[in-house]
Amino acid sequence: MRGAVLYAPGDVRFEERDDPKIIKPTDAIIRTTATCVCGSDLWDYRGINRVDRPAPFGHEYVGIVEEVGSDVHTIKPGQFVIGSFFASDNTCANCRNGYQTNCLHREFVGAEGCQAERIRIPLADGTLVATPEQPAEQHIAGLLACSDVMGTGWYAAVAAEVKPGDTVAVVGDGAVGLCAVIAAKELGAGRIIAMSRHEPRQKLAREFGATHIVAERADDGIARIKELTGGIGADRVLECVGTEQSMQQALRSTRPGGNVGFVGVPHGVAIDGEELFYSHVGLRGGPAPVREFLPDLIDRVLSGRIDPGKVFDLVLPLEQVAEGYRAMDERRAIKTLLRP
Amino acid sequence: MRGAVLYAPGDVRFEERDDPKIIKPTDAIIRTTATCVCGSDLWDYRGINRVDRPAPFGHEYVGIVEEVGSDVHTIKPGQFVIGSFFASDNTCANCRNGYQTNCLHREFVGAEGCQAERIRIPLADGTLVATPEQPAEQHIAGLLACSDVMGTGWYAAVAAEVKPGDTVAVVGDGAVGLCAVIAAKELGAGRIIAMSRHEPRQKLAREFGATHIVAERADDGIARIKELTGGIGADRVLECVGTEQSMQQALRSTRPGGNVGFVGVPHGVAIDGEELFYSHVGLRGGPAPVREFLPDLIDRVLSGRIDPGKVFDLVLPLEQVAEGYRAMDERRAIKTLLRP
Repeated sequence: MRGAVLYAPGDVRFEERDDPKIIKPTDAIIRTTATCVCGSDLWDYRGINRVDRPAPFGHEYVGIVEEVGSDVHTIKPGQFVIGSFFASDNTCANCRNGYQTNCLHREFVGAEGCQAERIRIPLADGTLVATPEQPAEQHIAGLLACSDVMGTGWYAAVAAEVKPGDTVAVVGDGAVGLCAVIAAKELGAGRIIAMSRHEPRQKLAREFGATHIVAERADDGIARIKELTGGIGADRVLECVGTEQSMQQALRSTRPGGNVGFVGVPHGVAIDGEELFYSHVGLRGGPAPVREFLPDLIDRVLSGRIDPGKVFDLVLPLEQVAEGYRAMDERRAIKTLLRP
Repeated sequence: MRGAVLYAPGDVRFEERDDPKIIKPTDAIIRTTATCVCGSDLWDYRGINRVDRPAPFGHEYVGIVEEVGSDVHTIKPGQFVIGSFFASDNTCANCRNGYQTNCLHREFVGAEGCQAERIRIPLADGTLVATPEQPAEQHIAGLLACSDVMGTGWYAAVAAEVKPGDTVAVVGDGAVGLCAVIAAKELGAGRIIAMSRHEPRQKLAREFGATHIVAERADDGIARIKELTGGIGADRVLECVGTEQSMQQALRSTRPGGNVGFVGVPHGVAIDGEELFYSHVGLRGGPAPVREFLPDLIDRVLSGRIDPGKVFDLVLPLEQVAEGYRAMDERRAIKTLLRP
């Protein structure tokens, strides 16, 4: 089969790779229906994370089950499935607490690369969620979004404890930030402030439910949020970037007693304990426990209630994966969907 | 009148000072019934916080109202009152959200020193809570504890979102940590693990509701908490110290999806964003909005349901305030109560 491999910063190749095989009896093999490029992959692509050796790439997927191991009981060949980037048994104490990305037996599905024609999914019964039937073509993109960005945006809102009527600000206008707007709306936010300087993204944010756009950044952005909130800050702020600046912007835009949910993978972020103390801001982040939200999110997509698939503004054949990365790196695309 | 003044690290003097006067029409003057020494005062006393000039000292108090300004309407002369270390109007947006220590008009009551025979209380209507009648002598210590340490321990448990049945660990066996044990018990914790190496404090912790004692610290302490919690960590951890080590111990003793409430004033604490991210731990701290909890805490004390006054294991006449500090500095006393 063929798949994407990152050789060095900026150097993604689509090449022949070994077919994945059942290694453990809890594995499944899926034939990829769609996969995509994640904003977090850009940390590697841009050389901000170190790339030591050629590595299979990508961690988002939907597909059809082709084969299951002898210890897989609920997932069956032929099913259309969606799963998270972390495989989880969905039975351990952390899974039962709703934190499947901290499963005591978790494995990173992306380790073998999901931008490929076939993928091995560990802990298939715990990881994969099957749709009731084969989904219509119009829902493929939305379901694929649930495997990461929609689940991550949802977790940002859950971690920030968004409640009906809240004023919610979203820092970051990538696919996750845009999905966080959807999540805030679904959870009943009264006002949703999207922080974005890019006209097409502002437009999509509005379509997803943003009621206000703030184009300013850093201190100016914080001042605008304060202006919109009677001087105290937003009730909940969803941090969807992962830099020191974006984290500071999030923390300082939140009212005393409010919450920040942070889902951008932090790069060089240190939080000053004393500033956090006097701010009274609550903070929770992490790799989103997508598995926890998948059944609900799949329902919302299939019923047409939400359409996170709109974050994909570039669709390419899988063999053009390198162009998919370039387009996102140069911000020509919000998110690239790839079809084998 | 006479009051305590900190001249330099280790140098507390009890001396003649000007009588406090009504400065703003929202002020009240109280005659101090009891005051005390706070663990957070030790940061100054030990020279960890800089002491630039002689400063009136102390920020905890209960007393009898002697005089009120022309714009004070609910508080009356003759009432027995308890208040927080931060004066608050109790009407601004932050107060209404339950964060009176972030009141838009807050003033630090301790600025003029509460270890004194009389105290000016700004924003008296918003700050002070009167008891229904003059309290019995046996309740004075418990009511005084509510003005800071009991309110702060309570906030630690609220900030950590303690729920019935939770396993709660408390880092720090000072008066606040011990009051945090009371709070965890009142909020329904199933198991309460007090981290303490000091036999008299362990004993009081057990009396307050601790079900387990962990004497180990740092990595060994974290390992013990993990052992007690099936390997994943406590549901909620209450950080009542404020050092880098204690914060790390708290964060690393908490299960994924659990919460840390931190009320020790952070000194040199930096939180690594990436570690916090992958931990899935929620974090909220701050100076406790004692005012929010006072009516409830006063009820619990007067009804005999809780007795946080037991944290005072040394009672001295106010003029011996210097000895009160020495005893706490040398850990001969958990907390010193001072009577004018």
